[in-house]
Amino acid sequence: MPPKNRVDVLIVGAGPAGVMCANALAMAGVDVRIIDKRPVKVSTGHADGIQPRMTEVFQSYGLAERLIREGFQLHMSALYHPRPDGGIERTRRVPCVALPTSARYPFVVTLHQGAIEDIFLDSMKEHRVEVERPKQPVNIEISDDVDELCSPSSYPVEVTVESLDTVEENKTEVIHAKFVIGADGAHSWVRNALGIKMEGEQTDYVWGVVDMVPETDFPDIHMHTDIRSSSGFCKIIARERELVRLYIQLLDTDVVDPLTGRVDKNKITPQELLSVAKKIFYPFKLADPKEIDWWTVYISIGQHVASSYSVKDRVFIAGDACHTHSPKAGQGMNASMNDTHNLAWKLVQVLRGWSSPSILKTYEQERRKYAQDLISFDKELATLLSEKPRRTENGDVASDARVFQKFSDFMTGIRVHYFPSAIVDPKHQKCAQNLIIGQRMLPQTFVRAADIRPVEIQDLLPSDVRFKVLVFVGYLTGARVSELKLFAEELNKSSSFLRKYSPDGNISVVFDITTITAGKKEDIDYLLVPAFFRPHWTKVLLDDTDAIGSKGGHGYERFGMDPNQIVLVVVRPDGYVGTIAPSSAVADLDNYFGSFMLPRRLES
Amino acid sequence: MPPKNRVDVLIVGAGPAGVMCANALAMAGVDVRIIDKRPVKVSTGHADGIQPRMTEVFQSYGLAERLIREGFQLHMSALYHPRPDGGIERTRRVPCVALPTSARYPFVVTLHQGAIEDIFLDSMKEHRVEVERPKQPVNIEISDDVDELCSPSSYPVEVTVESLDTVEENKTEVIHAKFVIGADGAHSWVRNALGIKMEGEQTDYVWGVVDMVPETDFPDIHMHTDIRSSSGFCKIIARERELVRLYIQLLDTDVVDPLTGRVDKNKITPQELLSVAKKIFYPFKLADPKEIDWWTVYISIGQHVASSYSVKDRVFIAGDACHTHSPKAGQGMNASMNDTHNLAWKLVQVLRGWSSPSILKTYEQERRKYAQDLISFDKELATLLSEKPRRTENGDVASDARVFQKFSDFMTGIRVHYFPSAIVDPKHQKCAQNLIIGQRMLPQTFVRAADIRPVEIQDLLPSDVRFKVLVFVGYLTGARVSELKLFAEELNKSSSFLRKYSPDGNISVVFDITTITAGKKEDIDYLLVPAFFRPHWTKVLLDDTDAIGSKGGHGYERFGMDPNQIVLVVVRPDGYVGTIAPSSAVADLDNYFGSFMLPRRLES
Repeated sequence: MPPKNRVDVLIVGAGPAGVMCANALAMAGVDVRIIDKRPVKVSTGHADGIQPRMTEVFQSYGLAERLIREGFQLHMSALYHPRPDGGIERTRRVPCVALPTSARYPFVVTLHQGAIEDIFLDSMKEHRVEVERPKQPVNIEISDDVDELCSPSSYPVEVTVESLDTVEENKTEVIHAKFVIGADGAHSWVRNALGIKMEGEQTDYVWGVVDMVPETDFPDIHMHTDIRSSSGFCKIIARERELVRLYIQLLDTDVVDPLTGRVDKNKITPQELLSVAKKIFYPFKLADPKEIDWWTVYISIGQHVASSYSVKDRVFIAGDACHTHSPKAGQGMNASMNDTHNLAWKLVQVLRGWSSPSILKTYEQERRKYAQDLISFDKELATLLSEKPRRTENGDVASDARVFQKFSDFMTGIRVHYFPSAIVDPKHQKCAQNLIIGQRMLPQTFVRAADIRPVEIQDLLPSDVRFKVLVFVGYLTGARVSELKLFAEELNKSSSFLRKYSPDGNISVVFDITTITAGKKEDIDYLLVPAFFRPHWTKVLLDDTDAIGSKGGHGYERFGMDPNQIVLVVVRPDGYVGTIAPSSAVADLDNYFGSFMLPRRLES
Repeated sequence: MPPKNRVDVLIVGAGPAGVMCANALAMAGVDVRIIDKRPVKVSTGHADGIQPRMTEVFQSYGLAERLIREGFQLHMSALYHPRPDGGIERTRRVPCVALPTSARYPFVVTLHQGAIEDIFLDSMKEHRVEVERPKQPVNIEISDDVDELCSPSSYPVEVTVESLDTVEENKTEVIHAKFVIGADGAHSWVRNALGIKMEGEQTDYVWGVVDMVPETDFPDIHMHTDIRSSSGFCKIIARERELVRLYIQLLDTDVVDPLTGRVDKNKITPQELLSVAKKIFYPFKLADPKEIDWWTVYISIGQHVASSYSVKDRVFIAGDACHTHSPKAGQGMNASMNDTHNLAWKLVQVLRGWSSPSILKTYEQERRKYAQDLISFDKELATLLSEKPRRTENGDVASDARVFQKFSDFMTGIRVHYFPSAIVDPKHQKCAQNLIIGQRMLPQTFVRAADIRPVEIQDLLPSDVRFKVLVFVGYLTGARVSELKLFAEELNKSSSFLRKYSPDGNISVVFDITTITAGKKEDIDYLLVPAFFRPHWTKVLLDDTDAIGSKGGHGYERFGMDPNQIVLVVVRPDGYVGTIAPSSAVADLDNYFGSFMLPRRLES
């Protein structure tokens, strides 16, 4: 009889979605295990582009510095089109990320998937969580018992896991979990075992991918470059360690076996991929590289979204298990990691008894909608890039550039927008017109009122499972200070959300309060802010430039806020604006949190 | 008979000047030993302010990131003066560092001396150099033999070193060194042994220093604050780990023993220091802290400069051994570390046979002049701060603020200016009016031409012993490209400085070439730059903004350069502009390097 083990969360699959999830849970102190069927992790190739919003997410876990140090940066995109007399020419260079006012990291970081996974694996290790491999699930059962499903202390999912290690003796283990995450890729075992279907279309694009250090006279080899030649399409992605990746779209004639009419991946060699690339590069020269770091050929399996993301809110699927699309939009890894970034804090809130399990429904609501938008975008892009580029009457072939700019918001992840739900309430949007409720909190530099040190507001919003309450108090006039004292008393009542959902009035366990004043650094006095609104001296910010006037300022204006009003901005633990309310509408905040948070019983 | 040992450089003293020197030499692969008589290093208190230029120097050794991570930052300075009705009031807040166009790090980093030393100790350790302690020199002899003194391979300095370790058996060791550095503090044994005198004036200011976590309603406790009250002068320096340092100037009545008329340090307790501080703070309250992290009382030993910095250019003194001054200017550690930052690369150039020993004379020329300026400044500041503040007719007591601003350039270290010498030739200053020859290279963001990634030019000027040659080539027109090809041929001749002083034409061993073009990111083609001027694709920069237009640009204009001319800027290994020449005056560069560099004999 196999041993029986219990764990709060079992994660199946240690790809980007799995390790993002495991790390987030490990950092929160959750009892978590993660298994993977591969005996070793990937070390080269695979997905490689970290979009600007994703870098912000890395930063929220304290991991952006390493990502940026190890990765390469794509700042510019170049577009090439056919020349009338044969060969290709550059039609335009545009910013790779065209969001000057909003992108905190205005570039794409490229780094191979293994190195990105290592960032999470090393962080997990500090919290004593490591991937168990090679192990795969062979059976999964979810209890039908309603009491068991509703009980926060029950372990209603039973997963039988088999070790693929040939030397291990006890090859089978039954794990009882509170929650299970299937982050096991496009061919997800968990998804199939649960009978969840993929919905969408099949489109057979065949792609070749080569990672190498190129020798070429092509001037845009160190950028993000799209070449649409009469010989086909090639995307260039400059990478870490002098590497360059070429995505080469293959024609049927390149890959289809004329006898069977089927794509024969084994027919292709990297030399054949390069010979296609050489034709596309003409008249620029692409020499045979000394070494090929990694290569593959794959058939784009179309655009699909899973019909459901969860069974009974006890088993969830995430990442490629939920959505498949083409590589052209550079979204693969980003979409996957953002799935579990969205899910992890909700699981922790439930496991800690802070939130009701009902909050888990928002995972599918938010991420499935996103995936649908993603595949619509991907289809549009794929169609566009498959068409022959047309010159307009004035010789312009830059329409791709316009499309590129149009989709930039989507590709960068900056404008991902979660629609109204239990955790997104846009009622008082007018209090801060430009802080879109349901989008991620805008980056903005303020200064700390006590020492005038510039700080990025996003750095005060770590992914630490707590809701952040940003109290915009305006100018500290005498009248405002009196008003704030009364407001502090109101918020400190036991019926207020800040007290009601915190243990023993220990507000900072569950909520993190930061106060943002208007005023001038020359005369601001942070001690005028009532102590309730400044749990620490570093938690009072000022909307002014830094000492030498080079950073910060104009935050109220950028956010579309009136400093003559006290406004509370609630930022979710994942960095998205959950709701906003003026001080006159605290009842709406009570209702907001009341819809998913659980009142704390007094500890006896 | 004690064992005889040989070493290229022996450093006496592991304070800031010593460890800066040891690390610079260790990074350059020099055979170096460093001894210190203290059994353990300092762990609290002592010097604490890293000025903006010093942070740039840390960065040039790859150490600024850690410094900034561990330290606190002072951005604003507050000034307090007596109120007409008693007590103090704030008269002004000003930037702590008022150099918006030129300071790369526009703040002072505060961190206790032990933590700063650790940064160097850890870096040295990576290069297998550690401090030997407790050891002190007991005898030093320099050879009188001219041949020996002139020979690059000789070890003309003999130092007898005694171990203070009570258990060690061989307590005495004779070390033969090519060079010896006395970085052994204000009471330098090396200086005294060599008979070097200190010149200057005695002024008896007595200071108390207390490091603690304060409890106070004083609103500027987290800044750099000067309080001039009718009860005395106090300087507040906010520090790492919530600490705050108070410098309290004591009156004779506080410290002089009335019986002997002498200062009695033992008379003073930290409680007494705090009671003086409390009077100065009035009407603000300063509670007794729970704990005092560190405290001391010292008599400012006046302003002195050593009469000489070297004996026979074989033994040097550096740091406090060369200069003493008051703590008011916050220069102590900075001046000391800059001494050895100036000296280290010169020693390495001589030890490697790249430069003639004559280059070592510039150490005293440059650093003694600086020390003299420093004590003049310190006297002026000390006098000013000892006077009673006077209100002007319109009630303004902000003259301190004006003085503060006036001296800011000096205090920050940004405008340290080395005068003409073998290694500073201002002949062609007009080619770049704002890149002052003899001052440190201005920070400026350019973009890399191949991938439009923004880079700070200072980050391409590491302290790696090589002279940097920045080739400003202007716009890459057809005519300019042809001109550059001819220029490359000229520079590649064996008579050119780049070849003459490099081994076997391997230019990049001794010189580091970076090319800076004018142009637009939308159409720049870095491959037009002749290969001679781009040893690697990352070494061609472009004077334009980054992709989204938020950083960089206008470098030619800021430097006062004409992009219609080819101009070469030579940056010394310590980051100071050595000389500048237009392409038409390469002979002047040949002369510049010829005055101190040694031609490479062909290796046979």
